[in-house]
Amino acid sequence: MKNNQFGRLTISRSHELHELQSINFTDGTLFENANTQFADFLIHATLSANSEPVYQEKLHNLLATPSKDLAEFFAADLPLTVDVFYLVALQLLKFEAGTDFEVDNPIAAMDKINLPHVDSVKDAKEVAHAWYLLLTTHTKNGETFLDYLTQEGYFKDFYSETTEPLFFNGKVQAVFDPHQTIHEVVYVEAPLDTDHDGKRDLLKVEVLRPELTNHHYKAPVLYTASPYNQGVNDSYGEATTHNVDVPLSRKEPQKVSKQDVTAEKFNPILPAERTVAANSKITDETFARESPYTMNNYFLARGFAVVYASGIGTRDSDGIRDTGAVEETISTTAVIEWLAGNRRAFTNKVDNVSIDAWWSNHKIAMTGRSYLGTLATAAATTGVDGLETIISEAAISSWYDYYRDGGLVAAPDTFQGEDMDVLAAEVFSRKIDAGDYLKIKPFFDQVMKRLNRDQDRATGNYSKYWDSRNYLNNVKNIKADMIMVHGLNDWNVKPRNVGNLWNAIRDLPIQKKIILHQGQHIYINAFRSIDFTDMMNLWLSHKLFGLNNDAENILPNVIIQDNVEPETWNSYPDWQDANDTVKKFTLQAKALVDSSIETKPAAASFKDSLDPEIFEQYKNDMNAWHTDLLNTEHATNGKNHMRDNRLIFKSAQLESDWFIDGSPKVTVNVATNQNFGMLSFQLVDFGNAKRLTTTPTNLELHSLSGAYDWRTDDLREFTLQKKETPWKMISKGHINLQNRTNNYQVDDLKPNEFYDVELELQPTFYHLPKGHQLGLVIYATDFETTIRGNQLLQYSLKLNQSHLEIKLAKPSNQ
Amino acid sequence: MKNNQFGRLTISRSHELHELQSINFTDGTLFENANTQFADFLIHATLSANSEPVYQEKLHNLLATPSKDLAEFFAADLPLTVDVFYLVALQLLKFEAGTDFEVDNPIAAMDKINLPHVDSVKDAKEVAHAWYLLLTTHTKNGETFLDYLTQEGYFKDFYSETTEPLFFNGKVQAVFDPHQTIHEVVYVEAPLDTDHDGKRDLLKVEVLRPELTNHHYKAPVLYTASPYNQGVNDSYGEATTHNVDVPLSRKEPQKVSKQDVTAEKFNPILPAERTVAANSKITDETFARESPYTMNNYFLARGFAVVYASGIGTRDSDGIRDTGAVEETISTTAVIEWLAGNRRAFTNKVDNVSIDAWWSNHKIAMTGRSYLGTLATAAATTGVDGLETIISEAAISSWYDYYRDGGLVAAPDTFQGEDMDVLAAEVFSRKIDAGDYLKIKPFFDQVMKRLNRDQDRATGNYSKYWDSRNYLNNVKNIKADMIMVHGLNDWNVKPRNVGNLWNAIRDLPIQKKIILHQGQHIYINAFRSIDFTDMMNLWLSHKLFGLNNDAENILPNVIIQDNVEPETWNSYPDWQDANDTVKKFTLQAKALVDSSIETKPAAASFKDSLDPEIFEQYKNDMNAWHTDLLNTEHATNGKNHMRDNRLIFKSAQLESDWFIDGSPKVTVNVATNQNFGMLSFQLVDFGNAKRLTTTPTNLELHSLSGAYDWRTDDLREFTLQKKETPWKMISKGHINLQNRTNNYQVDDLKPNEFYDVELELQPTFYHLPKGHQLGLVIYATDFETTIRGNQLLQYSLKLNQSHLEIKLAKPSNQ
Repeated sequence: MKNNQFGRLTISRSHELHELQSINFTDGTLFENANTQFADFLIHATLSANSEPVYQEKLHNLLATPSKDLAEFFAADLPLTVDVFYLVALQLLKFEAGTDFEVDNPIAAMDKINLPHVDSVKDAKEVAHAWYLLLTTHTKNGETFLDYLTQEGYFKDFYSETTEPLFFNGKVQAVFDPHQTIHEVVYVEAPLDTDHDGKRDLLKVEVLRPELTNHHYKAPVLYTASPYNQGVNDSYGEATTHNVDVPLSRKEPQKVSKQDVTAEKFNPILPAERTVAANSKITDETFARESPYTMNNYFLARGFAVVYASGIGTRDSDGIRDTGAVEETISTTAVIEWLAGNRRAFTNKVDNVSIDAWWSNHKIAMTGRSYLGTLATAAATTGVDGLETIISEAAISSWYDYYRDGGLVAAPDTFQGEDMDVLAAEVFSRKIDAGDYLKIKPFFDQVMKRLNRDQDRATGNYSKYWDSRNYLNNVKNIKADMIMVHGLNDWNVKPRNVGNLWNAIRDLPIQKKIILHQGQHIYINAFRSIDFTDMMNLWLSHKLFGLNNDAENILPNVIIQDNVEPETWNSYPDWQDANDTVKKFTLQAKALVDSSIETKPAAASFKDSLDPEIFEQYKNDMNAWHTDLLNTEHATNGKNHMRDNRLIFKSAQLESDWFIDGSPKVTVNVATNQNFGMLSFQLVDFGNAKRLTTTPTNLELHSLSGAYDWRTDDLREFTLQKKETPWKMISKGHINLQNRTNNYQVDDLKPNEFYDVELELQPTFYHLPKGHQLGLVIYATDFETTIRGNQLLQYSLKLNQSHLEIKLAKPSNQ
Repeated sequence: MKNNQFGRLTISRSHELHELQSINFTDGTLFENANTQFADFLIHATLSANSEPVYQEKLHNLLATPSKDLAEFFAADLPLTVDVFYLVALQLLKFEAGTDFEVDNPIAAMDKINLPHVDSVKDAKEVAHAWYLLLTTHTKNGETFLDYLTQEGYFKDFYSETTEPLFFNGKVQAVFDPHQTIHEVVYVEAPLDTDHDGKRDLLKVEVLRPELTNHHYKAPVLYTASPYNQGVNDSYGEATTHNVDVPLSRKEPQKVSKQDVTAEKFNPILPAERTVAANSKITDETFARESPYTMNNYFLARGFAVVYASGIGTRDSDGIRDTGAVEETISTTAVIEWLAGNRRAFTNKVDNVSIDAWWSNHKIAMTGRSYLGTLATAAATTGVDGLETIISEAAISSWYDYYRDGGLVAAPDTFQGEDMDVLAAEVFSRKIDAGDYLKIKPFFDQVMKRLNRDQDRATGNYSKYWDSRNYLNNVKNIKADMIMVHGLNDWNVKPRNVGNLWNAIRDLPIQKKIILHQGQHIYINAFRSIDFTDMMNLWLSHKLFGLNNDAENILPNVIIQDNVEPETWNSYPDWQDANDTVKKFTLQAKALVDSSIETKPAAASFKDSLDPEIFEQYKNDMNAWHTDLLNTEHATNGKNHMRDNRLIFKSAQLESDWFIDGSPKVTVNVATNQNFGMLSFQLVDFGNAKRLTTTPTNLELHSLSGAYDWRTDDLREFTLQKKETPWKMISKGHINLQNRTNNYQVDDLKPNEFYDVELELQPTFYHLPKGHQLGLVIYATDFETTIRGNQLLQYSLKLNQSHLEIKLAKPSNQ
């Protein structure tokens, strides 16, 4: 168990006292001595006790020394010590005696769990300081003690008195009753007519705003653009999914310039805006339960408004869904423009009564993971006014990098056969309303045909279509500050998406922070070992409430979770750092050798085809395929059917820990027996070890909540797997051998002729420990990613003309 | 998708109109024609619309005919037909056009999904009847349409006017604001002094009661006794867990009579009751969030009080935990006595201020699954006053049947090494409060020693200890009506527990109902295919509110889910029915043959020991062991290491479907090469089929809630597995060969001498389809259940003196 808190503020003692008073822990005057002050704080924190006997009973439950409970300790009038204070503190923080700490040395436990503590509690002032520190310290359940008290009801008596947000340690507190939230719907008029009905598209927006906004309070806004929010078409999406068991074929060689694949400027002819018939402050439509984004729930009791919109082509909105298109971005930013007072919305789709976001303070942050985070990224790249910051998790930065790689169709993990059209079909939720769908179906069917053509599964090449769906083209417009979160094991939205974005914004005059975790496609706000929620509270209190809390300097620019030590998060000066050391290897028979060592010419080859029965088995059990791909030990289950279908090269055992940073680069000199072909690569950590799970383990169901009597979340953590595993994939990459120049030009490929092929694998940050071996695995068909033709292809490599280049970062100081 | 509703009432048309009026769907006067009446009902159900334009927009979203939306249909003033009504109804019920039904034949879809419908809607009266029926019909999400509207906010405007419970279709409705619930703690004085401190044990009780109880309303009570509710000691439990890789040993033969193992009457000498210093109506202590039992959440907005108590030895309570002991039952019923006005509670543990359950209507139901349901069963067997009914799910009826079988230690599935002492340690949550534990630890350590001795893992024999933990001894006391729910695939709390209870209460003068599902150790209140929540609402409205709704006759006595057809629940006259047909087989080489066919003497034998490496593998992968145990096909992964460690006997392929009912009985004539030994048996369905998952599939997260803005549950269902499996275990059993007479007497066993051994396997109800084969598998060590000595034991069977007897029920009429 290890606590990592980056979002805690250190402030002056007088400021601490002032804040303790503002949340009613003191009336401003401290008690005479340490014991009475401590007891008084404890009374305030013992929320279940409404009488002295009950309070005394709760003190009896707490151990003060190895042989006395706290009631006895107070009764004996012994002097308070740090040992007593922190023995009690550990229990208040929900750590368990005997299990999580030893009762005879609480300070050792505080240090081991990485919990901050003071050195002296000899008087009331020092106790107040220690108490302040305790309130900002994480419990065993990964929330601050004050947040724990909050969900136990600490602030519920504040609700009726709330007139403005309340801050503590730089973070806004839950003094707004979430059950009094106002739910209303408006329809934003977007500068679009994507369904070609001659009227601008109206977009349904669900607003949740504090009741206090009815009384002159202006709320900042968390806005989540989620195409999934109004429902999805799972069976339609499934029916649209492409067969991936199709052969790779030769592409006609062609010279293509960057200009040829540069998207044209978006310049639609638009219908006029609607004529406003009247203006209203009152909406016509409400909704019961939104489909919430978890982190927003935490902030709903803290004075934020939360706004959800699904955009064009979704239930109750106009328009047509075209995933990744400029129109989708405009549909996303139209809502921000309304929230910032720069665009019109209506109370319904019929009578032209307009309505302003009169309750908004015009400062907006976008939140969301995956497609939701992608739309936040898209919005940021427009530089739209009012968007102060985005917090995007596992976001796509270019749709080509989601569905394609190196001139190949390359599916996100576990979504083989999915493509732009499938996703568009999935989120086209206007289909759910049969009355609405009746009219829009013919037009949407045309759009689906166009998408199917333009996404071009036949070549996998980058094109104008993909270029118009590449947000990286517009990063120069970004004005919002950027918080990015991504999993280094996210093989759905692969790390390249955030890697390229980070590189592109590194020198922009904005604030940018990145957190890289060891998960796959998940969110981290309920994790025990990192105070993500606190950090975001600090950040949003600063960005949206304008609180002067130094968040920009306190939050590290780069936080990366270690993949060897559980619950360890380090800060770094950069990711994909220009100051890294380059390390280059040359391929030899089964080995990676340092490139400074001279090597003799050697060759190796592998085939791609499999026995049809084995091919079917692997299709149905991709884990088995992946295991056989990487398994170099003697196969326990008989033959390893991948033995002749890949080459594995391993380094010597490492003599010290390495921190591989950024994109590994592979150069191979390769020939194939046909006039087409592809290569896949995996960078692998070989070495027996108990590794972290990439799917979080639920530690405690329903244990977290942002407020009293409110929605809950499950405490989670990556934990060490119970058994050792012999390897772990670090990164991967794919290339069509006809895309040697780039991903749009098609090069010729002559059978049995050798070509140099160079590519960058997905960027990473990987702690490869001493004693392990770095491995490079070269193969062709990737069952999880590429099309699977099971063709009679053979590949040969000239090993000494083939190289791997990685970059090594320095270990973190922290 | 198939709907099964057992809890729907059919009432008179005039009564329907009266109820529609009581929930504000009409003011008592119907409209002139069918269309205006239908439109008016729809206005009331369109909760999101606060204006005519928004309402019209929602009508446009609904399809009325294959070519017209509902707004167009109304505008055209076409006559309402059943096709129009049910096309709209299907959409209101969340079924999707094109996916779940075809728009040109809605009635066919209603029939196929098993949704009730009317035949004519020609006038307003018929529309009102159809609408009433619709409100009581399940949506695609497995709740009534009215319950769906409830969570969308239908009743939230009722909250401020509520003066009494409101009933619709025999079920109480959510007209109480759950966020206004009062949370308070009392301490019930139990007639126990289990911690031997010279004072009666005070037990913490958490009360949630409707705010209206402060204004003369008396609430019925749902009481859940959960030893887990105040926390658990996972690491302590783990440390206490027994090593099961120990040898089986010979037991000294001894004659033991039933009398010898009959528990003595419980007759403790008790300290006097506390002297009452004062009486109060106001409590001293509160709590924030209880650890809720899911089904209770649904009822919290419906006028029930909900009460949780963890009992002796848990956090904040006095006493010592001794799982299954009479004291535990008394600790459970003491709370009922207080709720019924027959026992004293105090506001805290110190100052002797007593407090009555003055807000209670003195009618109590107990709810809960597993240990919670077990305590409900225990309470019922005391005949305690005030306990009107229990709804026990997956409950234990005798602790011997949980941790032992046939004179053997036999663990519940996935809890190898657990025993009574482990469970007692796990739930002894006084340990969590270090101050409290400091004082009680020495005494509890003694109790643990006693438990460890008395549970007697050395012999596995039934004894006075187990007899005092056998609730079946007291079934004659039961006065409460009994609802039992159990999984036919529950290998944690095995079906014998509910089977024996059902048999024991069959002739008692109480109401009893049983629902058997195809899951393991789960609850079924969020299942799509059965209206469990509705049935329990009907039942509790009757039992606790005294509503005259004929629940006793409407709910079938026996409902059993079919294991072949998904989402199919049938009612039967009985389970383990005396009218079943007996079918007897004789064992032959690899075959089960009808006992009427004469067979010649034959023998077969198997060993129990395994290569130590394989033994370790199986320990770490019990699925692999189970697969090898039952796999008779050629092993794909090389050798099947269980081939010589078990005998498999299969019947001929069935010529018609069988419905195996009750406990299969096995008689074998067996010898072993040692003077001790054990046998295990599995009854198996052999035949390739896609079978139901026994772990529910989540169909829709957070989709269900008992009220507006309230806690949610995930919609679940057993779904067909994607791949065919070759077999499924139907039932199992174990016996120590020295317990041939019964589970307490120890018989002699001479090496290599043949003995008749007879045992009953776990009771079941199993649909074995035509073409499949019934199989009996005989083996010794069960990796999932028994101790695992890996000993050099050999077993030989005289096949023609060995038999299997099963009973066949008639198929359900329904």
